[in-house]
Amino acid sequence: MNPGQAHTPAPEDGYQLWLRYPRIDDAPTLAAYRAALTQVVIDAVSPTLLAAQEELDLALKRMLGVAIPIEKQVRRDGALIVGAARSSPTIAALNLQDTLRQVGREGFVITRAQARGKNCLVIAANSDIGALYGVFHFLRLLQTHRPLDVWPVISAPRIRYRVLNHWDNLDRTIERGYAGFSLWDWHKLPDYLDPRYKDYARANASIGVNGALLTNVNASPLILTRPYLIKAAALAEVFRPYGIRVFLAPRFTAPMELGRLKTADPLDSAVADWWKRLAEEIYALIPDFGGFVVKANSEGQPGPHDYGRSHADGANVLAEALAPQGGVVFWRAFVYDHNVPEDRHKQAYSQLTPDDGRFRENVLLQVKNGPIDFQPREPFHPLFGAMPKTSLALEVQITQEYLGCATHLVYLAPLFKETLDADTYCQGPGSTVARVVDGSLDGRALSGIAGVANTGDERNWCGHPFAAANWFAFGRLAWDHRLTAEEIAEDWLRMTFTNDAQFVEPARAMMIGSREAVVKYMTPLGLHHIMAQGHHYGPGPWVDQGRPDWTSVYYHRADSGGIGFDRTPTGSDAVSQYFPPYRDRVANIETCPEELLLWFHHVPWQHRMKSGRTLWDELCHVYNSGVEAVREMQRTWDALAEFVDAARFEHVRALLRIQEQEARWWRDACLLYFQTFSGLPIPPQYERPAHTLDHYLRLTHYYVPGIREWRLG
Amino acid sequence: MNPGQAHTPAPEDGYQLWLRYPRIDDAPTLAAYRAALTQVVIDAVSPTLLAAQEELDLALKRMLGVAIPIEKQVRRDGALIVGAARSSPTIAALNLQDTLRQVGREGFVITRAQARGKNCLVIAANSDIGALYGVFHFLRLLQTHRPLDVWPVISAPRIRYRVLNHWDNLDRTIERGYAGFSLWDWHKLPDYLDPRYKDYARANASIGVNGALLTNVNASPLILTRPYLIKAAALAEVFRPYGIRVFLAPRFTAPMELGRLKTADPLDSAVADWWKRLAEEIYALIPDFGGFVVKANSEGQPGPHDYGRSHADGANVLAEALAPQGGVVFWRAFVYDHNVPEDRHKQAYSQLTPDDGRFRENVLLQVKNGPIDFQPREPFHPLFGAMPKTSLALEVQITQEYLGCATHLVYLAPLFKETLDADTYCQGPGSTVARVVDGSLDGRALSGIAGVANTGDERNWCGHPFAAANWFAFGRLAWDHRLTAEEIAEDWLRMTFTNDAQFVEPARAMMIGSREAVVKYMTPLGLHHIMAQGHHYGPGPWVDQGRPDWTSVYYHRADSGGIGFDRTPTGSDAVSQYFPPYRDRVANIETCPEELLLWFHHVPWQHRMKSGRTLWDELCHVYNSGVEAVREMQRTWDALAEFVDAARFEHVRALLRIQEQEARWWRDACLLYFQTFSGLPIPPQYERPAHTLDHYLRLTHYYVPGIREWRLG
Repeated sequence: MNPGQAHTPAPEDGYQLWLRYPRIDDAPTLAAYRAALTQVVIDAVSPTLLAAQEELDLALKRMLGVAIPIEKQVRRDGALIVGAARSSPTIAALNLQDTLRQVGREGFVITRAQARGKNCLVIAANSDIGALYGVFHFLRLLQTHRPLDVWPVISAPRIRYRVLNHWDNLDRTIERGYAGFSLWDWHKLPDYLDPRYKDYARANASIGVNGALLTNVNASPLILTRPYLIKAAALAEVFRPYGIRVFLAPRFTAPMELGRLKTADPLDSAVADWWKRLAEEIYALIPDFGGFVVKANSEGQPGPHDYGRSHADGANVLAEALAPQGGVVFWRAFVYDHNVPEDRHKQAYSQLTPDDGRFRENVLLQVKNGPIDFQPREPFHPLFGAMPKTSLALEVQITQEYLGCATHLVYLAPLFKETLDADTYCQGPGSTVARVVDGSLDGRALSGIAGVANTGDERNWCGHPFAAANWFAFGRLAWDHRLTAEEIAEDWLRMTFTNDAQFVEPARAMMIGSREAVVKYMTPLGLHHIMAQGHHYGPGPWVDQGRPDWTSVYYHRADSGGIGFDRTPTGSDAVSQYFPPYRDRVANIETCPEELLLWFHHVPWQHRMKSGRTLWDELCHVYNSGVEAVREMQRTWDALAEFVDAARFEHVRALLRIQEQEARWWRDACLLYFQTFSGLPIPPQYERPAHTLDHYLRLTHYYVPGIREWRLG
Repeated sequence: MNPGQAHTPAPEDGYQLWLRYPRIDDAPTLAAYRAALTQVVIDAVSPTLLAAQEELDLALKRMLGVAIPIEKQVRRDGALIVGAARSSPTIAALNLQDTLRQVGREGFVITRAQARGKNCLVIAANSDIGALYGVFHFLRLLQTHRPLDVWPVISAPRIRYRVLNHWDNLDRTIERGYAGFSLWDWHKLPDYLDPRYKDYARANASIGVNGALLTNVNASPLILTRPYLIKAAALAEVFRPYGIRVFLAPRFTAPMELGRLKTADPLDSAVADWWKRLAEEIYALIPDFGGFVVKANSEGQPGPHDYGRSHADGANVLAEALAPQGGVVFWRAFVYDHNVPEDRHKQAYSQLTPDDGRFRENVLLQVKNGPIDFQPREPFHPLFGAMPKTSLALEVQITQEYLGCATHLVYLAPLFKETLDADTYCQGPGSTVARVVDGSLDGRALSGIAGVANTGDERNWCGHPFAAANWFAFGRLAWDHRLTAEEIAEDWLRMTFTNDAQFVEPARAMMIGSREAVVKYMTPLGLHHIMAQGHHYGPGPWVDQGRPDWTSVYYHRADSGGIGFDRTPTGSDAVSQYFPPYRDRVANIETCPEELLLWFHHVPWQHRMKSGRTLWDELCHVYNSGVEAVREMQRTWDALAEFVDAARFEHVRALLRIQEQEARWWRDACLLYFQTFSGLPIPPQYERPAHTLDHYLRLTHYYVPGIREWRLG
């Protein structure tokens, strides 16, 4: 029997993301909304207000099933007034100055007010973009069937720069992209503007994302040539009404490759002049250009070290070029060198902390959530809290490079929150990563967060129907990191599928549990970086060739005595980079959270875990419970058939089948491999591996998505 | 003013192609259809009949706005009976045997009949797939608002194998693809079946395409490994109800690369055995597997010559392996070698005619329409008519490798028809290419036609909103090459946009003229192969480096004395490969059609043309008239705004702007370059080139779509 047969909802392809605006299907709610909204009043004119107007028109028509007139003047009770105090006479007359002072350039207020003697709702801001954000917030309340009596809403973003980083190559392949190919059709730009560009901007504005790095940080210098700048400017023009600034990734040696200089030494005045002229050229084409995102001296990219200069020197030459026009530099802290014998965990801290205080004011140091590389679970990066005189931006990965590509259902908000909420203790308890990043801990004005995008040209944008939740969650947390993973999941489910609680509650529980599931079937108990080499698809704990710090054995260090990386003072002493009491807690095998045990300790196979099981038995147990968790997700989803249209239901169902297969693949391959060290049997209560270790060792995968590097021609 | 403002039709994205089925907007027609159709009767069961039923249900509901019941028995006047005589008792009782004998396995009859005392319409066939083709024909009549009194329709395909050749690589890039990336998501196959696969099959079945070569003829051996065969089988399963057989492109050295044999010599028995076992493995997975399409000893691909064997030897070893299960081999005749000094025009004929009669019965020799390579205009290939003991399939290119990618509006049916209707005179007048290809000239049972597909993952399938017309035209002509380019264009326009004659007539004229326009602004008067090297994007008449037969100077031979390739007996004598009187007509500069003049002759700059102009002035004139033709297309399109939804209207408009720019680029670059030989001025009545020749010479394009070759890892 095909569970698809029972569906009634019309087929959907996911293109509309969380902006579907279906007719409100709850009669009392619909009646209340219709009664509360009689007209929209927008009395000023700008591209951003036009966008707000278009969105309201589209959304209200669809959700309420009636056309709400959009007018210049309040005429009736139930008017919804939208605008900025600066440009809208109607808003200016409402005396909201005190409230508006709290919300800054991008925030908004939604409140009740009297205007021309009528009872009105007001979405007011200090700028048009603030008003647009307020409109999307208001529409979200309607989409999620909230009562219209929760006023005032006073909302402002806690982080200034909320940027998607697209690792898109100019040939439209996407590094670590699993949802097809790049959204940017460079060949037809600037002449043809795919309508999708605008829908991309709408989606971002609806969650508060205000920046987009268009191309891969493993950068082609071509992106800085005039033809490509003109193409980028065409995208910037589409994005501008939606408050999204374009960023570009410069190759550090561009002054040589494009400018024919003999050096790219950041302290060379000809080099500095070259960057300045480039910045001028860019700003002439893109007046609101956001700035540069730079990967330098990292994984083969050129950088200031090639000239004996520091990261600060490298970042500052770019920052100076951008400063006159207000641009910023995101300088990535993802730096490590396999020629350096030090634990990779420690290298960014070692390299960068000496530069604290040396970066220009318009530089942000962009630090990944953990010290290695976007693993299913990492401790927070020790740089957070360690550079109080530097603006530290957080970089998270929305695309699932190490989390099952876009075929595994993994909701990432719990992962993002785990980092944001982590306490660095740098200024005592409560010194969370979030407070470092939003600048509140050190009183820094500049703040930023970057998410490596999971978008591509697949119809539903992100490949897996649930992967859009991670884009959504990134934006929502970038705006307000105090939101919980649960409430974000709930909003997303209601907007993406249905408000029916019988659907939302089990689906939300499935989402919340999904991140722990993937940790369990891939990298339990603090294991990390044990995936296949290069494409990172599937398990590869046996990888021991090539750059040592790109092997798996470097990280798991399994031997007959035990498994895990000793990062205590008896080992690499990476723990010393953390502040106490966190440092002491993880350094002690007794107090170290078991979920990070093998990250910080080399642990004997017979070590007794809190469960009472030995480490080996616990490893078997957790790997198996990961597989079981996926099967539970399958059961949950199957039971939700009636709430979802057949197309999306079957899509998720097919991908959950793949996820279950691959969870078993991970479990069986890893346990068989680690068993060669432990010499212990897999306890009888668990499933036997489907194949021999040799089978898993021989599996070869070609043409895995997401691995092509840029190249010319 | 934005012409988009005036539109009333709802925005469309082109995904539905010519199967949109909009509500019939002409009241008398709608009333007539509703009256004529009261029920659908399908009394047999098969996946193909289920597809027919689904299509009728979808289409009639949308077009008529009422649900027509689908039942097992005739109950009312106005029943539409659908089925095959073999399986449907209702059809069997109608005594249509005599008519059905005329239509073979795939044909159909649409006629009136009495069943159970009721007046019925009947779509009858000898097989379920014939019935499905009849359903699509019937729906086309409704979509184009034809009266329902044109019975009987008796239709059967004139060509047995009607195959799309996808040059899709396993990394999803497409060689010479300009509409995004491959439709086939190998990574998620076989587990996830994108709904698009079925829509692809529907589109093909609706125009009679019955085969799909899934991947590039520049073949990766991996496609023949079991994991990929299982993926291909999953696609075959989706396609099967729609009558589409899967073909694969084997690499000739696969017995070595996959089978670890020491040789791929086709006369080696171990090699023959390896191919047999492979065929058995494939047929076990894909019982209706179509066969192989092979590019061998061509442009670096391995082949039988590497072992001192002939093309027939190479084709036959594969054909023998496939024969037991009824598979066929398409062996490509696109063979030439730059180590051979002979005019490339002549080489395929020289290499292959000695093999006539040596190919197995289940081999088709797949011959491109012209002797060089899909140029905007070529004479027909001299192999047509020259190998009476061999089944010759025609290969045309639907994708626009040399015709402006998917950014130029070029309707290709006139090009296809020019070849099909060309008279080879091999058996006297009337020995057209079409009659060679359909087998009627030599009484051959096996016949085939291949079209290099222009599909990709762009939302509208083919990139340019008008490019789908070329896919459509290929299928329609493959089914019946007597159709005119005009009637195919009219059907497509009506189905794709609107039946309004005020739209259809100018739009059809624009389509019909578009092929001659591109000839004029790219390669007028018989010029050919003067495009940029490698990616083939834009003009490159100056290309003179690399393999001589891949340069432009090899083909245009411009010098101070004149321009053109002397292929008469005083030159390469390629004309000798044609039959008289065609041979004599083109060999004589006085009788050679001017549109092919420089193809066959080296002509002095001062040669007097029929217009009275010198050759140089004529060249200037024709290049300019090509640009003017594009401007006329722009004017035509702009005047049609009210008939087209804003999204598709603006898309076409933007692409026409690109086309006009690129037409000027071609004109200016070519005239400036050829002027260096003629030494003559561009007559004053024509536009001056926008830049110097040096400007055009220096233009460098990276990341042009469609050029990546397959590679591992």
